[in-house]
Amino acid sequence: MITTHARAVFNPQGPFQLTTIERRDLQPHDVLIKIKYAGICHSDIHTARGEWGPINYPIVPGHEIAGIVAQVGSAVTKYAVGDRVGVGCMVDSCRTCEPCRKGDEQYCLSGNTGTYAAIDRYGHYTQGGYSTHIVVTEDFVVRIPDRLALDVAAPLLCAGITTYSPLRHWEAGPGKKVAVVGLGGLGHMAVKLAHAMGAEVTVLSQTLKKKEDGLRLGADQYYATNDPQTFRELAGAFDLIINTVSAKIDTSAYLSLLALDGTMVNVGAPAEPMEINVFPLLLQRRSFAGSTIGGIRQTQEMLDFCAEHGIAPEIEVIAANQIDEAWERVLASDVRYRFVIDISTMEKE
Amino acid sequence: MITTHARAVFNPQGPFQLTTIERRDLQPHDVLIKIKYAGICHSDIHTARGEWGPINYPIVPGHEIAGIVAQVGSAVTKYAVGDRVGVGCMVDSCRTCEPCRKGDEQYCLSGNTGTYAAIDRYGHYTQGGYSTHIVVTEDFVVRIPDRLALDVAAPLLCAGITTYSPLRHWEAGPGKKVAVVGLGGLGHMAVKLAHAMGAEVTVLSQTLKKKEDGLRLGADQYYATNDPQTFRELAGAFDLIINTVSAKIDTSAYLSLLALDGTMVNVGAPAEPMEINVFPLLLQRRSFAGSTIGGIRQTQEMLDFCAEHGIAPEIEVIAANQIDEAWERVLASDVRYRFVIDISTMEKE
Repeated sequence: MITTHARAVFNPQGPFQLTTIERRDLQPHDVLIKIKYAGICHSDIHTARGEWGPINYPIVPGHEIAGIVAQVGSAVTKYAVGDRVGVGCMVDSCRTCEPCRKGDEQYCLSGNTGTYAAIDRYGHYTQGGYSTHIVVTEDFVVRIPDRLALDVAAPLLCAGITTYSPLRHWEAGPGKKVAVVGLGGLGHMAVKLAHAMGAEVTVLSQTLKKKEDGLRLGADQYYATNDPQTFRELAGAFDLIINTVSAKIDTSAYLSLLALDGTMVNVGAPAEPMEINVFPLLLQRRSFAGSTIGGIRQTQEMLDFCAEHGIAPEIEVIAANQIDEAWERVLASDVRYRFVIDISTMEKE
Repeated sequence: MITTHARAVFNPQGPFQLTTIERRDLQPHDVLIKIKYAGICHSDIHTARGEWGPINYPIVPGHEIAGIVAQVGSAVTKYAVGDRVGVGCMVDSCRTCEPCRKGDEQYCLSGNTGTYAAIDRYGHYTQGGYSTHIVVTEDFVVRIPDRLALDVAAPLLCAGITTYSPLRHWEAGPGKKVAVVGLGGLGHMAVKLAHAMGAEVTVLSQTLKKKEDGLRLGADQYYATNDPQTFRELAGAFDLIINTVSAKIDTSAYLSLLALDGTMVNVGAPAEPMEINVFPLLLQRRSFAGSTIGGIRQTQEMLDFCAEHGIAPEIEVIAANQIDEAWERVLASDVRYRFVIDISTMEKE
């Protein structure tokens, strides 16, 4: 086994402590990655605090991982030592079911193997990217293009692909009107990506507090959802709404903002059920859908797209001993727009 | 004005009474139809009883109309006296908005003009097909193919198109697995149509009471939803679910029956909001959608499809003085599968 440093929580309340964890010895198709940066995602908090179900402790979160290949297994063909690579929310899947064969490993019928808090095919409990090294099978590693710095590449592995995938699936592009609900880690990526795809982009945020940011990031319009006039003015306006807000919202009101055949896609998952009035769906053949991350091939496509269009998340880099504080700020929506842990600071602890 | 016989209710409690109503004098593009048959739709009851909002009384329901052209306006080009024609749920729309221009008049942004209980462009309150004659602009009249009898053609104008349209829109056909929830007026048409389109069809009904019927109508499989095993066995099984049940159901359980990228379409509209758990949507990129009737061009296509494939609803023909009794039986789900009023019996009253 390979011993590696990590920051873990040992119970739902935390705090993070420096510890060591074991990574498996390299199997023929495995890649050992020296992690340089790990993004902080809201899911890390939900999972580590047991809000999405009971988990085992200690837990090392982190599924926005960017680093350098340090060693490769005997049969690895895709990567070589020194390559700039990334790992996102999953590290394996069955690879034989229909979704896997289509390249939609995130929808693996046996369930994909989460980067942390999952049991992998070796029976090991997976641990994530708040750590100095990770071992991942090459098929679940993506290449980070040279034009993308590693620190900004990290959040693309979750926040980027989670918004890129539905924008592609529901064909955001020229002539399409896309609304993004919520301007946080996911929302600000959705704005940048939809804009780069050529769509007309509107941000729907609770207030106008971040309006200047939103327009700078690529939004054409910015509306406050605490103003009822917004819902009157924008009725039937959008082909696609990407809802990045995980809290319960007045879904029926948002559905009424869709044009004929429009779709509202939830990329966040509120714990409570949402109430849906069927009439707004019937009246314009609207759809309410969900989407989660993206397949490995599409994740690579997304990274290449970002490199080509000069798209990167807005980040605040922190040291490994600042994670607890950063989590509190995530919960208080006090981050523009993604925290990224500089893992080199962990080595010096 | 043209005076015509009709059966109307004068208050939410009914009962039906024979009365006379006025139809407008023929405008240049109008067609006067001598009604032969009118189907009874559950919406007639909801509307006439004020369950979908307050309405004016007396009201003559009926939006499944089949008859013969009796007279045409000076500029009518599409129909001639003696033609076999039908009228469905709408008798006009703005004709200029984007949905109208696309042939989706049912989604007219100004709201289509309902066949009854609506205000038309002349400022008149529309009255439906439980009547001996109706005047409708030719663009909202469809032709009933010779191979379709008028009595069975009537229910196609609502129950038929309401199920045909989503089956076409979501591409039911060979290789697709379609489930139909509820085997009533709409459901039995959905089964026949999906089967004729080449899809594999499964009925999901509360019990197995109508199983024999379901299989005879074209279903390949028939499951009882009061058996929890059904939901385990059929998890992820369907590409498309047509939900014809207007009552509140456990939507999240049904969504779990969809395969990757599957869609559940509500064609009925429960008055209360439905509770949707977002996780089943996220986990397989599923959609929950709504659909209402179909455009005029598609209604004609549906009639031609039914004629070509020998598809007709199963009906029970009643006399005009039996409507009250028929409504009670509709509410008790005691009809296989559609009541059709023989309007000639009204003339003899």
